[in-house]
Amino acid sequence: MTVRNVLFVMADQLRWDHLGCAGHPHLKTPNLDALAARGTRFPNAFVQSGICGPSRMSTYTGRYVSSHGATHNRVPLSVGEVTLGWHLREAGRTLALAGKTHVVPDRQGMRRLAVDGADELAVLLREGWFSVVDRHDGHHAEPDSAYADFLRAQGYGGADPWTDHVIAVTDDAVQTQSGWHMRNARFPAKVADAHSETAYTTDQAIRFIEAQGDRPWVLHLSYVKPHWPYVAPAPWHAMYSAKECLPVSRSPAERGAHPVQDAFMEEEVSRAFQSDDCIDTVRPAYQGLVSQLDHHLGRVWAAMDHGGRWQDTLVVFCADHGDYLGDHWLGEKELFHDCIQKIPFLLYDPDATARGVTDTRLVESIDILPTILEALGLDPALHLMEGRSLLPATRGRQGPWRDAVFSELDWSFRGARRRLGLPIGEHHAWMVRTEAWKYIHWSSGMPPQLFDLAADPEEFFDRGTDPTLEPVREKMREKLLAWFAGLKHRTTMTWAEAERVTDNHKKGGVFYGQW
Amino acid sequence: MTVRNVLFVMADQLRWDHLGCAGHPHLKTPNLDALAARGTRFPNAFVQSGICGPSRMSTYTGRYVSSHGATHNRVPLSVGEVTLGWHLREAGRTLALAGKTHVVPDRQGMRRLAVDGADELAVLLREGWFSVVDRHDGHHAEPDSAYADFLRAQGYGGADPWTDHVIAVTDDAVQTQSGWHMRNARFPAKVADAHSETAYTTDQAIRFIEAQGDRPWVLHLSYVKPHWPYVAPAPWHAMYSAKECLPVSRSPAERGAHPVQDAFMEEEVSRAFQSDDCIDTVRPAYQGLVSQLDHHLGRVWAAMDHGGRWQDTLVVFCADHGDYLGDHWLGEKELFHDCIQKIPFLLYDPDATARGVTDTRLVESIDILPTILEALGLDPALHLMEGRSLLPATRGRQGPWRDAVFSELDWSFRGARRRLGLPIGEHHAWMVRTEAWKYIHWSSGMPPQLFDLAADPEEFFDRGTDPTLEPVREKMREKLLAWFAGLKHRTTMTWAEAERVTDNHKKGGVFYGQW
Repeated sequence: MTVRNVLFVMADQLRWDHLGCAGHPHLKTPNLDALAARGTRFPNAFVQSGICGPSRMSTYTGRYVSSHGATHNRVPLSVGEVTLGWHLREAGRTLALAGKTHVVPDRQGMRRLAVDGADELAVLLREGWFSVVDRHDGHHAEPDSAYADFLRAQGYGGADPWTDHVIAVTDDAVQTQSGWHMRNARFPAKVADAHSETAYTTDQAIRFIEAQGDRPWVLHLSYVKPHWPYVAPAPWHAMYSAKECLPVSRSPAERGAHPVQDAFMEEEVSRAFQSDDCIDTVRPAYQGLVSQLDHHLGRVWAAMDHGGRWQDTLVVFCADHGDYLGDHWLGEKELFHDCIQKIPFLLYDPDATARGVTDTRLVESIDILPTILEALGLDPALHLMEGRSLLPATRGRQGPWRDAVFSELDWSFRGARRRLGLPIGEHHAWMVRTEAWKYIHWSSGMPPQLFDLAADPEEFFDRGTDPTLEPVREKMREKLLAWFAGLKHRTTMTWAEAERVTDNHKKGGVFYGQW
Repeated sequence: MTVRNVLFVMADQLRWDHLGCAGHPHLKTPNLDALAARGTRFPNAFVQSGICGPSRMSTYTGRYVSSHGATHNRVPLSVGEVTLGWHLREAGRTLALAGKTHVVPDRQGMRRLAVDGADELAVLLREGWFSVVDRHDGHHAEPDSAYADFLRAQGYGGADPWTDHVIAVTDDAVQTQSGWHMRNARFPAKVADAHSETAYTTDQAIRFIEAQGDRPWVLHLSYVKPHWPYVAPAPWHAMYSAKECLPVSRSPAERGAHPVQDAFMEEEVSRAFQSDDCIDTVRPAYQGLVSQLDHHLGRVWAAMDHGGRWQDTLVVFCADHGDYLGDHWLGEKELFHDCIQKIPFLLYDPDATARGVTDTRLVESIDILPTILEALGLDPALHLMEGRSLLPATRGRQGPWRDAVFSELDWSFRGARRRLGLPIGEHHAWMVRTEAWKYIHWSSGMPPQLFDLAADPEEFFDRGTDPTLEPVREKMREKLLAWFAGLKHRTTMTWAEAERVTDNHKKGGVFYGQW
């Protein structure tokens, strides 16, 4: 076994199609392309939810959202669930974090169990079992954070240097404007590249890797970009023109096609992205942020080169979901189009039997955790893991594989739910996506959606109520039912223990059934 | 609001049809009949699993087995789940226990969270948030228990008075025999009625109720009988002849009809119950145990009379599941026939608008917890509860109701699974039962089952693969899918909190989507 370390890199809100190696005609990502050339690229990789919190909790637990229960960004992962950090801790190791996790403490559960103090365990629990090298979630001002202190030390003064510099820009009139307004995405950030979030988090990671020397490590290097606010420092803000961006993908047929989708089209962010101005302003900045991220990853690769770490380090690169950027008349994320659910996914395995492979199988982000556990020779925790290790794939011994991927949405939390006149409660949707079809099952009495991915790869024409396709929908519902039936609820007992107690009542002094 | 106290009585393994008020032609249960006359009898009440542990955890949590995860007897309820005891504790009250719970501590979860000490919280957690007045599970020897001490004080000597007296009998040759052998069920126990488990647990309950005086209380009075070992003290052991028992319900058509059912028919207990000798020996003792339980409940009713407690006490009587007793060529429980899944269910509500009511609606045992919460004016915990309060029914304001009930089985733990050649893993089944149909959905590649309850109320003829009934099965699968889609996974956030954070990102300093 060669793998001793794991570098698990995640980008936030990075679309699958925004990589050079994924075929983007203009966007430059030479370092990610180099990683793909060293390893395996999975062009059909999907997340378990199209929004940060639940998607990440699936990635960190190896479990679907319906299993771990953290259904939306502010919904905590229950103290009853465990993440990669706990699995590593059981093996005497730690999961280091540089960057974002979106972990929200289960305060009620911690209070209930009186583990809400300040000791090491409570700190770990609040962080979802991550050992924090540096945490930076990057979605709102955190004036007391280490990053804020770093900024101040670099001369970015003020009570809130993130708001005042990192997501602020200098406009053509040399006035400061807020990056919260997407119209300002074409201007450079008031922070230098070297002090940006991407650079700072990269610095933390490199410092961590170098500090470990030859001690084994597992690091989650988790970038907050290219997630909004869409503000890039020079020169990245101006690296791409609107013409060098992907064309917007939308059709009049999509409007009025589904009530929930329509309600999402009425969100402020969607209305903004329905203007070409917005698209032409944001997309270049978004691409600049991707190239910036790639550039700084190059520094990580150099540190890996320098330390000889490509010999013994598994490297994963993925995202937590994509970004509409105006596609389908939508902004932000959450819904089920491929530009949200499909992610970039690269895997470098030192022990792989081939390099530069493109593996088209359907991969899910819950596969990452089992992959890491296997790479490190740890207990596969089969009673918890709902994903599957990808090492058999990289090591040339892959057997049968899944034919569908699944994603979920708890759409209780957006204004769309209220505009549909629905009270708070349980408002969920599930995606079943095969190579040929995408089926979306809505609760709350909403009609299903169905897309014929072969005939309609851009997912413009919802066939969810087309009577001729009822047999297809029925097949997809059967897949969904089988998926529900396969979820792993028996989390408090390992399979080995379950095998041990099977049919052994007499050993426990229980002799029922004897005549 | 009148209700201040709750007396929540459960019998273990008591069939729905073994009550006088349910129409049994010979079995005498005058005190339960009196409770039915004071309150409401629900003749269509069902459990969420046909085996003690999961069924009870559903009753105690108000949640389906797929939601709480304690899928079989030895599978602990996760520290992430909460029971009635916790809900009461949040309101400054306690849930007292006299008798059995089948709670198994989540030792791994408690160790993980360092709450596995000896303090009050750890004690409560080990007991599933019950405050133990006296716990007695009654399925195996517990020589260090309070009941064992009680027995010794009454002169039942020895290291293990339960094995030596309570479940031992005196045969015709005045020899001691073990009640673990069902052939001995016709003999009297070596314990006197007054010192039996049923009497002892009743004593604990009465003492508790009397000690509370006018302080409000909630008591789970949880009998271990008529569950095996089928040993009744005199005179109950001889109260019924075989002719006074219900006729066995089985058909040759059931043999070879379904692989899992067949494998269960090969269990030792099923093979024993396939003999008429066994049926004729056990059923009278079982009925004797029921009448004994009823007799001692009469003492509780008297204590309620004496204390004036019928004025202010909600009383629930139910069971955790039934018992095959040879029906369907089976012994024990777990599978989905009505003699297992349907339970006796009586509800006495001081504020009811009518008395002696028979309410035929489909009730589930997860309805008990919401009923208790409403009766006591506590938070309904809608984000957790999957059952529904029955007080609108007793109080004459019931609206629309469910048209199906659901139960589940994790059949990984019995020899049947091994006989089918299946490795440990996920082996589950779900029952969807409407008034007209019972559909059973098996995973692990097993065929479905379907029973036409109108044409075949004894469930002899499995139509699970009858091609003419595919439309019925499809409807039932749709119900099952809708059920899965309605399970409540978002347990770490209340609905009020979810409503509060809906669409309020700007209040949190997050301004995405503005042009």
